[in-house]
Amino acid sequence: MLSNILLKISYDGTNYSGFQIQPNAPTIQACLEDALSFLAKERIRVTAAGRTDAGVHAKGQVVNFKSRISVPIEKLPVALNSILPPDIRVEMAQLVEDSFHARYSAIEKTYSYQVYQAPIQSCFLRLYSLWVSNPIDWEKVEQAGKMLIGKHDFKGFAATGSSVQTSVRTMKDFQIKKEGRLTTMYFTADGFLYHMVRNIVGTLLEIGTHKRSTSDIALILERKDRSLAGPTAPPQGLFLESVLYLLS
Amino acid sequence: MLSNILLKISYDGTNYSGFQIQPNAPTIQACLEDALSFLAKERIRVTAAGRTDAGVHAKGQVVNFKSRISVPIEKLPVALNSILPPDIRVEMAQLVEDSFHARYSAIEKTYSYQVYQAPIQSCFLRLYSLWVSNPIDWEKVEQAGKMLIGKHDFKGFAATGSSVQTSVRTMKDFQIKKEGRLTTMYFTADGFLYHMVRNIVGTLLEIGTHKRSTSDIALILERKDRSLAGPTAPPQGLFLESVLYLLS
Repeated sequence: MLSNILLKISYDGTNYSGFQIQPNAPTIQACLEDALSFLAKERIRVTAAGRTDAGVHAKGQVVNFKSRISVPIEKLPVALNSILPPDIRVEMAQLVEDSFHARYSAIEKTYSYQVYQAPIQSCFLRLYSLWVSNPIDWEKVEQAGKMLIGKHDFKGFAATGSSVQTSVRTMKDFQIKKEGRLTTMYFTADGFLYHMVRNIVGTLLEIGTHKRSTSDIALILERKDRSLAGPTAPPQGLFLESVLYLLS
Repeated sequence: MLSNILLKISYDGTNYSGFQIQPNAPTIQACLEDALSFLAKERIRVTAAGRTDAGVHAKGQVVNFKSRISVPIEKLPVALNSILPPDIRVEMAQLVEDSFHARYSAIEKTYSYQVYQAPIQSCFLRLYSLWVSNPIDWEKVEQAGKMLIGKHDFKGFAATGSSVQTSVRTMKDFQIKKEGRLTTMYFTADGFLYHMVRNIVGTLLEIGTHKRSTSDIALILERKDRSLAGPTAPPQGLFLESVLYLLS
């Protein structure tokens, strides 16, 4: 019987050229499909909720695949983790309805972005955060970030040239959590455009370091012009935190 | 003028064969001495408070060296960090008395050891903790760890064959801090024998997983027999946290 199987996975993206499979480069998808194909004794293709870029991490990526795999679903995480490299872990496996699609069935995603603010870079956080040596006014960042909440055309924060049907998304929540010098920003939306979180972060950090004002957020949303927004923040601070589905 | 200079450094030990210089292997000492020698325009040798093993990390390693280096002391961290690889950072530089010796002048050191307890290994903590899938009774570990406090002959917890004058050390403090599934044990002593923390951790974890009883600590201290203690815990959980000096 052909089963539709959902996997929740986490990965340290440092050593990968992103999620999506490509020739002559290590990818999360290739590792995962190789491990699954080995266990299933047939070629498996997976579909992911979000195709993270090179260097981007995931704590709660979700993929699905259809297979006649004979390994019992409850044993799948342990079986896969024994084959996968240690920087990719399968956290959970679950049988889902035939119609479930990791990308199209998702109703909400949360990304986080870590910033380490200190005069000297941290050797332990260098691969998992953006280092900023200048002081950051996090109250200003929070104020600006909250302005993103709601249904907006986020075209001004998307990579130029992205070909999506609509750039209207609903930002449902923006939160900041501080732990000493490490600050994490959480973005929850019904969907994200290409480079959207990293472009927002680049803009918010310019606001937090007084290079621009909070009102720029409204301007960028209104004008829908990428050139008005800040730089794309580097990949290593970004984490796909979780994906929400309505599962029956 | 020949200055005696103290550096406080941190490093991610993952990609190094330990602190101490050795031929044909990457070491913290070689990186540091190369960077210093480049800046000082003379060959520099450093002395470290503790020579950490391959894979062991440091948040507060201390080294000293004597040099006629012309870079002002307050500019030394930034100058060195611009040359050093990103997994080694100089946190602070300070002029010290001529008699100061990073190893012999130390009066107290603190090491920490991180344990990640969960059914599935963490892809983000794999290089910075020991993963234990079985539940751990941390109250038992704390109880056993506190029995180490005081002046004892720690020979039973030292690597066999270590040639030190005396294996008597004073454990000044033992603390446990929990943050979700990550637990950190802190050991403070006037000195540590080779592999002492890792052998203690290996023993404490056997106590915490009910493979042996807390009373084994007293037995190992009394019998001074390495074969009675637990296995050497792996290096990646170990951090040299700090070194204490009486500086005038």
